[in-house]
Amino acid sequence: MQVHENKALVGILMGSDSDLPVMEAAAEVLRQFGVPFEMAILSAHRTPEQAARYAANAAERGLKVLIAGAGWAAHLAGVLASKTALPVIGVPIDSSPLHGMDALLATVQMPPGIPVATMAVGKGGARNAALFAVQILATADPVLAHRLQEHKADMAQGVLQRNEKIDPAVRVRFQELD
Amino acid sequence: MQVHENKALVGILMGSDSDLPVMEAAAEVLRQFGVPFEMAILSAHRTPEQAARYAANAAERGLKVLIAGAGWAAHLAGVLASKTALPVIGVPIDSSPLHGMDALLATVQMPPGIPVATMAVGKGGARNAALFAVQILATADPVLAHRLQEHKADMAQGVLQRNEKIDPAVRVRFQELD
Amino acid sequence: MQVHENKALVGILMGSDSDLPVMEAAAEVLRQFGVPFEMAILSAHRTPEQAARYAANAAERGLKVLIAGAGWAAHLAGVLASKTALPVIGVPIDSSPLHGMDALLATVQMPPGIPVATMAVGKGGARNAALFAVQILATADPVLAHRLQEHKADMAQGVLQRNEKIDPAVRVRFQELD
Amino acid sequence: MQVHENKALVGILMGSDSDLPVMEAAAEVLRQFGVPFEMAILSAHRTPEQAARYAANAAERGLKVLIAGAGWAAHLAGVLASKTALPVIGVPIDSSPLHGMDALLATVQMPPGIPVATMAVGKGGARNAALFAVQILATADPVLAHRLQEHKADMAQGVLQRNEKIDPAVRVRFQELD
Amino acid sequence: MQVHENKALVGILMGSDSDLPVMEAAAEVLRQFGVPFEMAILSAHRTPEQAARYAANAAERGLKVLIAGAGWAAHLAGVLASKTALPVIGVPIDSSPLHGMDALLATVQMPPGIPVATMAVGKGGARNAALFAVQILATADPVLAHRLQEHKADMAQGVLQRNEKIDPAVRVRFQELD
Amino acid sequence: MQVHENKALVGILMGSDSDLPVMEAAAEVLRQFGVPFEMAILSAHRTPEQAARYAANAAERGLKVLIAGAGWAAHLAGVLASKTALPVIGVPIDSSPLHGMDALLATVQMPPGIPVATMAVGKGGARNAALFAVQILATADPVLAHRLQEHKADMAQGVLQRNEKIDPAVRVRFQELD
Amino acid sequence: MQVHENKALVGILMGSDSDLPVMEAAAEVLRQFGVPFEMAILSAHRTPEQAARYAANAAERGLKVLIAGAGWAAHLAGVLASKTALPVIGVPIDSSPLHGMDALLATVQMPPGIPVATMAVGKGGARNAALFAVQILATADPVLAHRLQEHKADMAQGVLQRNEKIDPAVRVRFQELD
Amino acid sequence: MQVHENKALVGILMGSDSDLPVMEAAAEVLRQFGVPFEMAILSAHRTPEQAARYAANAAERGLKVLIAGAGWAAHLAGVLASKTALPVIGVPIDSSPLHGMDALLATVQMPPGIPVATMAVGKGGARNAALFAVQILATADPVLAHRLQEHKADMAQGVLQRNEKIDPAVRVRFQELD
Repeated sequence: MQVHENKALVGILMGSDSDLPVMEAAAEVLRQFGVPFEMAILSAHRTPEQAARYAANAAERGLKVLIAGAGWAAHLAGVLASKTALPVIGVPIDSSPLHGMDALLATVQMPPGIPVATMAVGKGGARNAALFAVQILATADPVLAHRLQEHKADMAQGVLQRNEKIDPAVRVRFQELD
Repeated sequence: MQVHENKALVGILMGSDSDLPVMEAAAEVLRQFGVPFEMAILSAHRTPEQAARYAANAAERGLKVLIAGAGWAAHLAGVLASKTALPVIGVPIDSSPLHGMDALLATVQMPPGIPVATMAVGKGGARNAALFAVQILATADPVLAHRLQEHKADMAQGVLQRNEKIDPAVRVRFQELD
Repeated sequence: MQVHENKALVGILMGSDSDLPVMEAAAEVLRQFGVPFEMAILSAHRTPEQAARYAANAAERGLKVLIAGAGWAAHLAGVLASKTALPVIGVPIDSSPLHGMDALLATVQMPPGIPVATMAVGKGGARNAALFAVQILATADPVLAHRLQEHKADMAQGVLQRNEKIDPAVRVRFQELD
Repeated sequence: MQVHENKALVGILMGSDSDLPVMEAAAEVLRQFGVPFEMAILSAHRTPEQAARYAANAAERGLKVLIAGAGWAAHLAGVLASKTALPVIGVPIDSSPLHGMDALLATVQMPPGIPVATMAVGKGGARNAALFAVQILATADPVLAHRLQEHKADMAQGVLQRNEKIDPAVRVRFQELD
Repeated sequence: MQVHENKALVGILMGSDSDLPVMEAAAEVLRQFGVPFEMAILSAHRTPEQAARYAANAAERGLKVLIAGAGWAAHLAGVLASKTALPVIGVPIDSSPLHGMDALLATVQMPPGIPVATMAVGKGGARNAALFAVQILATADPVLAHRLQEHKADMAQGVLQRNEKIDPAVRVRFQELD
Repeated sequence: MQVHENKALVGILMGSDSDLPVMEAAAEVLRQFGVPFEMAILSAHRTPEQAARYAANAAERGLKVLIAGAGWAAHLAGVLASKTALPVIGVPIDSSPLHGMDALLATVQMPPGIPVATMAVGKGGARNAALFAVQILATADPVLAHRLQEHKADMAQGVLQRNEKIDPAVRVRFQELD
Repeated sequence: MQVHENKALVGILMGSDSDLPVMEAAAEVLRQFGVPFEMAILSAHRTPEQAARYAANAAERGLKVLIAGAGWAAHLAGVLASKTALPVIGVPIDSSPLHGMDALLATVQMPPGIPVATMAVGKGGARNAALFAVQILATADPVLAHRLQEHKADMAQGVLQRNEKIDPAVRVRFQELD
Repeated sequence: MQVHENKALVGILMGSDSDLPVMEAAAEVLRQFGVPFEMAILSAHRTPEQAARYAANAAERGLKVLIAGAGWAAHLAGVLASKTALPVIGVPIDSSPLHGMDALLATVQMPPGIPVATMAVGKGGARNAALFAVQILATADPVLAHRLQEHKADMAQGVLQRNEKIDPAVRVRFQELD
């Protein structure tokens, strides 16, 4: 695999255009890692043929991982997973009055045989879905694996730097801990 | 419509053979009302093609109502509803460790455009699903409508009779209330 | 049945005038399908006589389906269902601090014998309740059945068109998938 | 009021004969306090006329308090409360797969205007419902008020005595605490 | 009992001054029914002595019913009930991030022996608590009992009148239903 | 402090004798660490005076930490905490039909000002409550602090040893990981 | 990659030996697909050093995917994910009185930056975790990808065959549907 | 121990800088009691090494108690507790769409062996965490114990004073209750 080529390796799908601001967080991570992707609005219930066909063709079109975000009785990830053997990652979205508990349970509680890898509810979950897709690709791509290690180190650095927001009088000095 | 003809008017579907004892309660009600039906095990996730085809052909095969029972992230009713304009009734089944809350939310929280008429969790819900199917058929069938009225009266009678289990010393005499 | 006649086939009931903006979504769908309906505010608890009488007379007044929206310990649908053999559709409304979980359970968990066809919590559920009422009527009305098919196709078209909101650089081209 | 007269002051109602073992706990408490009561199986949904009539006549038949136990979407207490101005006490029963959370929310979340005094889920709640009925009657009956004080003292004594089950080597000696 | 005398018959207690706007709804109902009451902020945890003393003296001070509103792990009603045999009504308040589910369970799930009559979460529950207190007093006060009947009739009238908000073209005419 | 002296440093309280098998797990841990303790059944609601007096005197009787286990609307820990400034540890017990969610929320959601240190639901929580009590005492007792370190090492050893239950063909060899 | 070589590609970890019967379901799937794996009991809390070291070394020891099953406040998957960039799959186990809702939320709600791919609660989730691990490996292994396709077909066949349990008089004949 | 010395006795940790406004409530209480403390942003998942090292060194650096606030699948408190025998207090923060129920269960449901003393969700919990830390320190520090008594008395006074917000016409006069 070459990270910079243009053919999409990850498909980011979502059940409604109102999910777009949430799922953009996934796109952003993939761009950051240089992983080519494609995006579509595709409803498990309103466009079942397109959803089925998309999933059925995904592997031969070169896709390696699918990410599906949906709210309410979130079936999109499950419907895709029923039609492909590619790994499908589900992002439950908190768009109903039940604050995403419905989407979470509808996504994660898949019956034996058809797994959906479920992430946290909402934008944080969308971001993590993309990171997890990168982790999957990295199992066969040393360049991506290396970037993930750098990303981990950067995150740690970022957390530690944010300690500057704490009053210096009480702030822990990590360099002195060792 | 003739109630006694043999062509199935109602399809009872379920996601797994372990759901059969629950969904039998629906079959029993339909038999009692003389409504012809058919039954199948059909998984939204493990047999998506058959589920889609079954729903897509249901109307032209003469079916009027579909009943779908499933546990876990119960998508069967939703998947059927996405492929037919027939009324689909969902029965959430409490087969997972979460006691049916997962199946309930995955069945009832359908997004706008694709309704699933959801019943209570478990066997009581299966029974009610069949009764509701009869109510739907009865909107165009005076014979069934009449039987439903009788059934309602029988149920009331049954409840009142069960008062005999109460100690006569404290039992309410309903006949004296008027 | 003639779709354009003026006698109401569907009754839309709600427990409080504060539910009106939610239940208007049901009215809108029925108007769109040309199904005549009537509406009333009718409380299971504050106007029990009127609720009982309304349900008891509904069938002979020519109604075919009742839709009942209510919040809190939402009993309206159940109370109506106890007095009529017509199909009753329940819409749980999220007007209490518990975000509709109370209304959902009070509506859906009907005991065996008296089904209420429960929809999702809130406005989406109201919309689906009306669509489901149309599906019921369509079991005996080929014109409505045809309109439902068109509506399904329109929805699919609508979802696909909303893909234009996605950056063309990453947007999936559905026409090329086949 | 005379505590020993035979005319029922409290009505214990329940939605199904399967609730009888739970609601017997309420009867037991009333017997213990010498409060005359009556009992009936009466379903909000299956015998709506009888339930309505029972509640509407309750006050003039001399009843002072109603206790209603029900499971699932427990509407019995609410339906009774809609037809009488007597205090109605609700006991949610854990007979559904949702372990009584459905019955609890359907009983307690009554909308403004029609209160139902809700007790804990199950047998403990049934016992407390009867005690609460006694407390209501005791607001106008000094003999009952006195018995309640004795009952409170007895309970305290009972709790303290059960300390004998604890290993004496580590048991707290309450008499030495003062 | 004379309804118009000035000595408080009902005590409205609450755990924090932030609960005052909620519990004012209870005061308003009591004023409307002419039931004298008193109000206090009294914390189960921060002023345990005062709470215990208030409850212990309540009966001899002439109080007949206590209403206790509290949020979080709402113990106020339970603490009062442990020190008095007067009926105690609990109002769970949704002041924590868990939206009142914590206050509801901490109020309603009282163990056998010490009942707390629990109302719905929030302002509607506070209003109902006062109505329920009036219902308790009315069991021994025909004037109050009569006012409750009038209040019920007024509520019904109010609901029916609000039907005017519905478009006359689809509005149900209740007068024509009989 | 001398660990081996006999005067109780920890009080283990519980709301009912049915909680004894759960709270014995706490006693066992304290015995294991050689921390003297005392035990009592003491109900927040049925023996409020004794509970208040016990807590009020606890510090001057030499107790350092209180552990309170209770089910249902578990108020015992909160009631004790309202009467003492000693650390109070709460153990929610799953004795109601709601599986301990009621006890958990009633214990943990204490309002600002009166903390209760809440442990997991049930026996595991009772065990941890005792361990936490030891940790508190160990902040001023180097011998106990040392024993805690040993206990931690023993637990680690115990977990690793249990790997012997795994088929050696697939078992990880930890000694080879370094 | 060669599927039949003996060096473990997947690590199956679990927090306690009581989780072994659940996690055996994952091992069984991997055996079935011929994917070499290793297993260990490793507690996030009781053996933090070993957990951290295992995760930190996993990639260089040749592992490609980690599967972590745990109950209660299930942190094992998250702790492993914090120390490796390999994909980590979490299986929430229902070993606490809260029926796995605690383990589910503690596993799935990972904050942005450290994803854990969460499966359903319990044995079904363990089985799916292994299938998902195979799907990850199959993104770079055509042999495994092919086996997954066969497995999907076998599952569909299995579901259809189980239709034989249905009474032939009402059983759907799928072969006649096309 | 001298309360006024500058070496930190309490460490306040949090998983993200967005938790700072919540955890400031803990700092404020410690300042008020004159207990020296230190603060740091330290993520269980993003800075696992620093979190482990901080906890491992905490005791020998003179810290007596750790307070850890975190949202989502809140593992920080558990991770710290796995590496130190000091008492660790957990504050679940409601930063996810699930309103803190995820953080609460992930913090409180610790498995046997590694306790985390859990406080209420959010700012109130942060305040109580600091108070509880003071209570722990006070078990070996009579000056702090005395201050806690004063604080309790001040709180009671504060609650009683806030009664002035109540209309004097209905306000309870506590001085007249004795």
